[in-house]
Amino acid sequence: MKQGDIVVIGGSAAGLTAAITARRHYPDRKVLIVRREKQVLIPCGIPYIFGTVGSPQKNLIGDAILEKNGIELLLAEATDIDREQKVLHTTDGEVGYERLVLATGSRPIMLPIPGCDLTGVYSIVKDVEYLSELQRQVEAAKNVVVIGGGFIGVEFADEINKAGDKQVTVVEIAPHCLSLAYDAEFCVEMEKVVTSRGVHIRTSARVERIDGQEKVERVVLSDGTEVAADVVILGVGAVANVDLAKKAGVRIGLTGSIAVDRTMQTSDKAIFACGDCAEKISFFGGRPSPLKLASIATFEARIVGANLFGVRRESVGTVGVWSTAVGEVVLATAGLTETMARDHGYDVVATTIEGPNRHPGAMPGATNTKAKLVFERHSGAILGGQVMGDVAAGEVINAISACVQSRMTAEDIATFQVGTHPALTASPIAYHMVNAAEMAIKQMHKQGA
Amino acid sequence: MKQGDIVVIGGSAAGLTAAITARRHYPDRKVLIVRREKQVLIPCGIPYIFGTVGSPQKNLIGDAILEKNGIELLLAEATDIDREQKVLHTTDGEVGYERLVLATGSRPIMLPIPGCDLTGVYSIVKDVEYLSELQRQVEAAKNVVVIGGGFIGVEFADEINKAGDKQVTVVEIAPHCLSLAYDAEFCVEMEKVVTSRGVHIRTSARVERIDGQEKVERVVLSDGTEVAADVVILGVGAVANVDLAKKAGVRIGLTGSIAVDRTMQTSDKAIFACGDCAEKISFFGGRPSPLKLASIATFEARIVGANLFGVRRESVGTVGVWSTAVGEVVLATAGLTETMARDHGYDVVATTIEGPNRHPGAMPGATNTKAKLVFERHSGAILGGQVMGDVAAGEVINAISACVQSRMTAEDIATFQVGTHPALTASPIAYHMVNAAEMAIKQMHKQGA
Repeated sequence: MKQGDIVVIGGSAAGLTAAITARRHYPDRKVLIVRREKQVLIPCGIPYIFGTVGSPQKNLIGDAILEKNGIELLLAEATDIDREQKVLHTTDGEVGYERLVLATGSRPIMLPIPGCDLTGVYSIVKDVEYLSELQRQVEAAKNVVVIGGGFIGVEFADEINKAGDKQVTVVEIAPHCLSLAYDAEFCVEMEKVVTSRGVHIRTSARVERIDGQEKVERVVLSDGTEVAADVVILGVGAVANVDLAKKAGVRIGLTGSIAVDRTMQTSDKAIFACGDCAEKISFFGGRPSPLKLASIATFEARIVGANLFGVRRESVGTVGVWSTAVGEVVLATAGLTETMARDHGYDVVATTIEGPNRHPGAMPGATNTKAKLVFERHSGAILGGQVMGDVAAGEVINAISACVQSRMTAEDIATFQVGTHPALTASPIAYHMVNAAEMAIKQMHKQGA
Repeated sequence: MKQGDIVVIGGSAAGLTAAITARRHYPDRKVLIVRREKQVLIPCGIPYIFGTVGSPQKNLIGDAILEKNGIELLLAEATDIDREQKVLHTTDGEVGYERLVLATGSRPIMLPIPGCDLTGVYSIVKDVEYLSELQRQVEAAKNVVVIGGGFIGVEFADEINKAGDKQVTVVEIAPHCLSLAYDAEFCVEMEKVVTSRGVHIRTSARVERIDGQEKVERVVLSDGTEVAADVVILGVGAVANVDLAKKAGVRIGLTGSIAVDRTMQTSDKAIFACGDCAEKISFFGGRPSPLKLASIATFEARIVGANLFGVRRESVGTVGVWSTAVGEVVLATAGLTETMARDHGYDVVATTIEGPNRHPGAMPGATNTKAKLVFERHSGAILGGQVMGDVAAGEVINAISACVQSRMTAEDIATFQVGTHPALTASPIAYHMVNAAEMAIKQMHKQGA
């Protein structure tokens, strides 16, 4: 029987990072990844195979990183866990373990509507062959409908639209695309950007059914509108893969994901979970968080990898930091939006600052950047931020994320020591984050007076 | 007699920001700026008037921001302070004040060598006419020598070299350019970039004298080397403008700048100081800091503006966060370099991570990013970071700055919740800052074992 001191099931962002972190923290332990997929896709890169990058083969996490880190690989599907004997059953034999890490990921949600089983209806499965087939079908299609206007749906639509010879339509049930990550004013601006590039957007639109004879022909909305479709892509979220855990009697949480404590330990002390399959609680108030992101997966995996033989790290909960890019326009978010914060019950002060991302404005690359910060009125603590700007917004949001994670207040941010440069950033006099904090303080004082 | 509740002397980064902040915190108070210069240059933008931007006129802070914020302006030179009567004497009459802010800035250091008074020798004076004349002379010149290889000197040299028809030489006394901001390995790489663009660099080179008949003809180094020069630019740093403060008996500190406490108050309770004219102490250990940056000036000004009629903010000391850009290559720094940290007496763990700034590497704009973090071994606290990469490095350094300012440890950064995106950042598996922290922890454990 094969034996790994540490056995990780799954080789994507969570599993790989857990394995690497385990190697760093326990260099004398044997680490083995059990993985079903021959090739591992970079999850966030999947939308870009349709345009920018060109194929699934150019969007892979190579296995060189395993060799480099001394991690063994077993290409097999895990079928059962014998928790008593600490043995994992796989399609390629048994593997003994001391510690087991479940990084089994998620699978796309299917819509409970007629027609989802028609030929030409795809979901976003992280599988090279599946996506290669989808790419071929998309290339041949005249009309493509993406159901779901979250960031994945929007990125898919924009990338597919790049070919220029298709009608691409996003159908979103909420009043705005991207509304789980951004306040409405940002969503509206991004919708304008996407639309100006030729993608059609239908919001507040519920899909009634998908229609067609032999294959998909149209999507029918609940108001009776028919949208022609040769290919339909479902991008309505993902659900945790928990079959293996469930079968083995590992506790499942209220949200249907694998229950973990703050050390990422499951109900079995020898078994940890991280990534899309693991239950998350929010950094804000500790409620269950629905977010599933590769960057959250790696954060959790770094906790798991360190804790396998003794608790070294605890999760503070999911902050939720991510970005989306459409052409040159970037939209980034960290923590709670104003809407979400109010929904959570916070008394909120939110301020928005707009201005150039260069100084002087005559510097090349100058464009407008808009940043919004959300604060809790009583404590002044920052709850979140949103930034719309150029490519650097993808890193501005990490500065904001640092402020959130270290629980900075508006006062701390108003006296933040920022680095600025004419060719790279806004002016130090008008740096967005700092001025937004200063404006928030002014509002807090007003209310207090 | 004119009267301003709050009178600010100086209208550049420090003075302007102090005035705006004062308006925000004390909306009922009258704010007046007394300023010598008709037009105010964006200080950090000055190098770019020679190439990218094209003229000093395109690098101005307009006075519209004063009107917008309800700030009065008196174009006059402050000549004397009557502290007893709380009256400022100026070349355009007297001005009464309740609180006075000294934001008198700095002037270039002149080298104590023969020939500095020759025609054709310039320093970096923040004056539109002076710089316009320098620009005309530079345009006519065949050979330009920049003395001083700090970031201003390097930026000047690269911008002047852009015209392509000149020999531009940087002379630096230290073994490397930029060595006050970066560890040697980064300086070497940036020197290569600058050199590859056609600028000549002479390091470990002391200037003996500047020679010429009617005007400058050459720079003579202490090893006898002669470098031909039609124009010489001195970029060897700046010294605080303290004449007015000194004359009025306001205390001057050990470094020759105006002494202030952590609230930015001077020895006179009605007088505050900020920016290049004010003494700074380091965030690290509290020693005097030699840094003079616009972003430090605005940080201090935001403390001054809030504190004028009651202490609301205290300075934590100068972190020192800034960037430089040469062509597409950006070098950014926050806090202490490894060399500086060791000089300060810290027991240091420093780690460097290199890798692409996109994922997959096939994404457009992918280039190598190199990030180094410096930690104190015992506490694990981050002391500083350096990043070499593309334009976004100018904001990555602000994320690192946030970590420094909130005194995060390597553990905190190893479990930092980063936002990533294929088109914008490194992969969440290989995010530089996080992996550098993880590697540092490994080194700390090794030493501790």
